[in-house]
Amino acid sequence: MATKSEHPDSNLYPHATGPAKAIVDAHQAEQPLKLFSGWFCPFVQRAWTVLEEKKIPYQYIEVNPYHKPASLLALNPRGLVPTLQYQDKPLYESTVLCEFLEDAYPDHGPRLLPRDPYERARVRIWTDFCTSRLIPAFHRFLQWQPLSDGEGLGRVREEFLGRLMELAEEMDGEGPFFLGKEPTLIDFVVAPWIVRLWVFDHFKHGLGIPEGADEDAVWSRFGKWRQALEGRPSIKNTTSEREHYLPIYQRYADDTAQSELAKATRQGKGVP
Amino acid sequence: MATKSEHPDSNLYPHATGPAKAIVDAHQAEQPLKLFSGWFCPFVQRAWTVLEEKKIPYQYIEVNPYHKPASLLALNPRGLVPTLQYQDKPLYESTVLCEFLEDAYPDHGPRLLPRDPYERARVRIWTDFCTSRLIPAFHRFLQWQPLSDGEGLGRVREEFLGRLMELAEEMDGEGPFFLGKEPTLIDFVVAPWIVRLWVFDHFKHGLGIPEGADEDAVWSRFGKWRQALEGRPSIKNTTSEREHYLPIYQRYADDTAQSELAKATRQGKGVP
Repeated sequence: MATKSEHPDSNLYPHATGPAKAIVDAHQAEQPLKLFSGWFCPFVQRAWTVLEEKKIPYQYIEVNPYHKPASLLALNPRGLVPTLQYQDKPLYESTVLCEFLEDAYPDHGPRLLPRDPYERARVRIWTDFCTSRLIPAFHRFLQWQPLSDGEGLGRVREEFLGRLMELAEEMDGEGPFFLGKEPTLIDFVVAPWIVRLWVFDHFKHGLGIPEGADEDAVWSRFGKWRQALEGRPSIKNTTSEREHYLPIYQRYADDTAQSELAKATRQGKGVP
Repeated sequence: MATKSEHPDSNLYPHATGPAKAIVDAHQAEQPLKLFSGWFCPFVQRAWTVLEEKKIPYQYIEVNPYHKPASLLALNPRGLVPTLQYQDKPLYESTVLCEFLEDAYPDHGPRLLPRDPYERARVRIWTDFCTSRLIPAFHRFLQWQPLSDGEGLGRVREEFLGRLMELAEEMDGEGPFFLGKEPTLIDFVVAPWIVRLWVFDHFKHGLGIPEGADEDAVWSRFGKWRQALEGRPSIKNTTSEREHYLPIYQRYADDTAQSELAKATRQGKGVP
């Protein structure tokens, strides 16, 4: 009989490794603000990088999303990560958490939302684009199977690259971050997928960005941004060793993963 | 040969009627802030009610989404409504517009986001719920067809009523609005679908809310909220005559509508 503990995705490595392990170890003490996290989860990494950027005191609590502890289910009946516990009250939805941390800790710099209302709105428009367009295209590419539906690998790759270009075309010309010299929430909202782009090299014969960046100003701008994200301490230090992501992404690449997002992608849907 | 002008959804009534006509007529003068609108569109009504609540000066520009004018396409290549033109720059995504109006016009009361960061986050969590859960369930119920997929009308009705109950259970006990005595953005984000609930009476044999509100505190609370929304001047005054919504919703109810949302619903997807 299949039990919860036999869920095929449940055997993931149990805790953060590499640079992320040091951060986790430094955040074990009890704090009023608690982050229920999965070390590998890109949605978690959004809120986690914002906590690190702003040096907000928090307690890190590792959760295997297939063995949800009662402490998490009491806060969030769907048992999703990231969930924050703030003054004993629950908050969830990764982009909501990012804005919440900005609102609730005004004394913790840097400010990650621009002061100008028009630029704030642009951050939110492109955050929405990431959820509604970029992530679904990332997963259609990653979960693509030769025999799944007759759709060529080239087509799902082109769709994803097209979304990356749309994003790059909106960026400040100089950068290196989306809105200029300093990063804002849009950078931390998209970064978890950008620092995981290696999965396409590993599993799908390469991301396929045209070689020779000079030929193409948009891809050159994109490359500069990618490098800035990969080098940002808050992002680097919430990343684990690649070898432990591999078995997780192998299941996505084989289209056998059973996360809500994996299943939604198989059904032709967006982020659930 | 099919031309754009023959799009089956394009013959909608060309302008607002009833209470909404007076508002439209009063907002024809040139203004730096322009609302590109479709009088019937619930996503438009979100931003439109916020403009009305805050008495922000704006110019109303009616657009038939199947005959997109060049002035709109220049701002927003997808030609979607609502689009705002602000200091000659475009903004879109209805929930982003609502927050933008709050940010950009701080001197125009009432404040529609609570000052408390936790309550602000709750407004955003339930805004996300509306987009990701409530509206898709509304459309699965509305577009349900007896032979479409063997799924009973009862099942899609139950799903939708379940979502309404989830929302009602989160409301302030007294109300009448979501967070209490005064409305906030979450009320204006959901209201357009609540004031269109009559479509289920008209097309789908009733919404099916259990009779006898005293039996059920949640439905009683929901009814109080619905009444408060229906009576709110900004909502009433951005609503047209029912007879002109009817042919539009008839096409949804027959599952022949060709809007992006109608097509996404047919494909089992969420809000595109």
